[in-house]
Amino acid sequence: MKIYVNGAVTTQFGELWGVSPRSLARGSVESALKDAGIESGQVEALFVGNMLSGMLGGQEHLGAFFAEELGLSVPAFKVEGACASGGLALHNAVNSLLSGQYATVAVLGIEKMTDHKPEDVATALMGAGSEEERSAGATFPGLYAMLARMHIQEFGTTEEQLAAVAVKNHYHASLNPNAQFHNLLTVEQVMGSSKVADPLKLLDCSPISDGAAAVILSSKKAKGSVEIAASVVATDSLGLAQRTHLTQLTSTQKAAQKAYHIAGIRADDVRVAEVHDCFTIAEVLAMEDLGFFPRGEAAVAIEKGETRLGVSTRVVVNPSGGLKGCGHPVGATGVKQVVELVEQLRGSAGKRQVDNATIGLSHNVGGSGATAVVHILKK
Amino acid sequence: MKIYVNGAVTTQFGELWGVSPRSLARGSVESALKDAGIESGQVEALFVGNMLSGMLGGQEHLGAFFAEELGLSVPAFKVEGACASGGLALHNAVNSLLSGQYATVAVLGIEKMTDHKPEDVATALMGAGSEEERSAGATFPGLYAMLARMHIQEFGTTEEQLAAVAVKNHYHASLNPNAQFHNLLTVEQVMGSSKVADPLKLLDCSPISDGAAAVILSSKKAKGSVEIAASVVATDSLGLAQRTHLTQLTSTQKAAQKAYHIAGIRADDVRVAEVHDCFTIAEVLAMEDLGFFPRGEAAVAIEKGETRLGVSTRVVVNPSGGLKGCGHPVGATGVKQVVELVEQLRGSAGKRQVDNATIGLSHNVGGSGATAVVHILKK
Repeated sequence: MKIYVNGAVTTQFGELWGVSPRSLARGSVESALKDAGIESGQVEALFVGNMLSGMLGGQEHLGAFFAEELGLSVPAFKVEGACASGGLALHNAVNSLLSGQYATVAVLGIEKMTDHKPEDVATALMGAGSEEERSAGATFPGLYAMLARMHIQEFGTTEEQLAAVAVKNHYHASLNPNAQFHNLLTVEQVMGSSKVADPLKLLDCSPISDGAAAVILSSKKAKGSVEIAASVVATDSLGLAQRTHLTQLTSTQKAAQKAYHIAGIRADDVRVAEVHDCFTIAEVLAMEDLGFFPRGEAAVAIEKGETRLGVSTRVVVNPSGGLKGCGHPVGATGVKQVVELVEQLRGSAGKRQVDNATIGLSHNVGGSGATAVVHILKK
Repeated sequence: MKIYVNGAVTTQFGELWGVSPRSLARGSVESALKDAGIESGQVEALFVGNMLSGMLGGQEHLGAFFAEELGLSVPAFKVEGACASGGLALHNAVNSLLSGQYATVAVLGIEKMTDHKPEDVATALMGAGSEEERSAGATFPGLYAMLARMHIQEFGTTEEQLAAVAVKNHYHASLNPNAQFHNLLTVEQVMGSSKVADPLKLLDCSPISDGAAAVILSSKKAKGSVEIAASVVATDSLGLAQRTHLTQLTSTQKAAQKAYHIAGIRADDVRVAEVHDCFTIAEVLAMEDLGFFPRGEAAVAIEKGETRLGVSTRVVVNPSGGLKGCGHPVGATGVKQVVELVEQLRGSAGKRQVDNATIGLSHNVGGSGATAVVHILKK
């Protein structure tokens, strides 16, 4: 059995103070249904990816909550795995189709973060980390800063090379109407932005965002279908202290290797990728862990533009703008990545269109790499 | 493909102040692996049912959290749907096996509630309800009290009949070593207990509990296997105000009818059932919505002992003691129900053994009926 994405839409990402979660859900799912050319009555189950609604807003039971809002009287589930919640919701949706229990399902990734105090959001996000990290007062910028420091030490990666990730992703975001940021950045601006957790500066960090993304998955092919050729999840220790390596994420490596095997492709076959650049160092790690570049060589390649739209001849990375430029409403991110790939593989990505995009890869991470989800999409 | 429960264990339920969530997880999953006769290395994915860890303790990302604790380096997911989280985790686990993506998976239902202030727990539990109910200051005892009041008005159900549910379930719990309560109750004691939300009294309500339950599910049959013949989820509006009926839960009816159809049985074939008696009225509703008794006749039947161990000649309900007697660690409940059915169908339920138990049904509810999950197990 093959699984297809038949509809794929994201809302605007950004600081959407005037928009409610209900409205984000309707805006994404109803448009995705329209994109798939089906009525809501044909949806047989709803999978919701969300991390923070309970901790920040006291609302749980989001499966039934959004099913009601969307007028879907169907089985509904919230799947959570920190910033990989969207990817995990997708994985469970894919398996539910492969099981034959459902023929068409909707996946909604959603997060509303900017209504809350940034300190509360930062605290809630640490729910993704280990107890030791939380009790030590660590934050995610701090944890990724340690990964960056190790990479700098081991491979001579420079802060300017990290900055190049943000510059590229803001350029891509400037071409994406739904992105949170449309301003171009220079390496100098990133380098001159305030330190958040040395060596990471403000402009090395993805923002706090609101947004939703939805896909309609089906075992039935339709007009504009894109195939999900692999959906793979891998885990690692929650905390950094328990890891074997700090310059690679084992979970990403495992998920990618298995996904390539299932899809029958090699890393070199991927022409467009949406990867989890919650911090600039995370994109460097992803490039190496996904096998796009040899270990220690990704940062140089990124600096040279080898993953940039219009320059790259092998793989364009984060054409949506990534988490850095497009925004990172955590539960939405894993779903938005797939929406971007669908647009790219359909050839409908407008100014962001990657040439010859026939195979796409999405890479969604929870915490500092405790969860990694890889999807491979084929035209 | 058939799906089997090959291992099934619950921890002690109760006020377990000296026991950590990590220890509950190990206690249940490691014992379930032993019960299934397999090593942890044979588990290919972990599904965690939990509602409150984020809101009460700030820890999310529980899939990876418990995978690490259990030494399982496998894909891991938290599935949440309020008090139906355990049932929803089971459903996704079953589908993941039917999909062929995994051959053997572990499902862990877990909740640690008594470490927190009861007011905080009550507030967090309202995360299962609608925004209107939350902002109106409603609590779940209050919402179920409204359902009870309607049932009394429509069918002449008496408060003594509701009390009979608690009396029966405490009797069953007295035979269950893992139950939170072992004290027998009388109708007079229930009637004389303090009013919580008229007509519900303290002893009409399930307790706040700690506990975990785990099952090992597999597409491979083993010694002691019990088949999962149906796994069905249905949803309804989150809030009571949007419902068509207040003396029946449509979600339970829909899930049960579909489950009977899939399993090829009728309600009359069920010899043992674990149902969601979060309040005594909920068990009365379940008896009618599951089709065990005609509408308006369940309360009388319960009072006569028609669902009581040693008396019933057709269906014994909540032999574990149910949520009322055995306890209700919310994320664990849906999994514990299946553990009890496995013991019953294996004939290893000791003093609680139901005669001729060949078909069992579990019924797990989220909120006031927004989510219902029905599993049917066969010997």
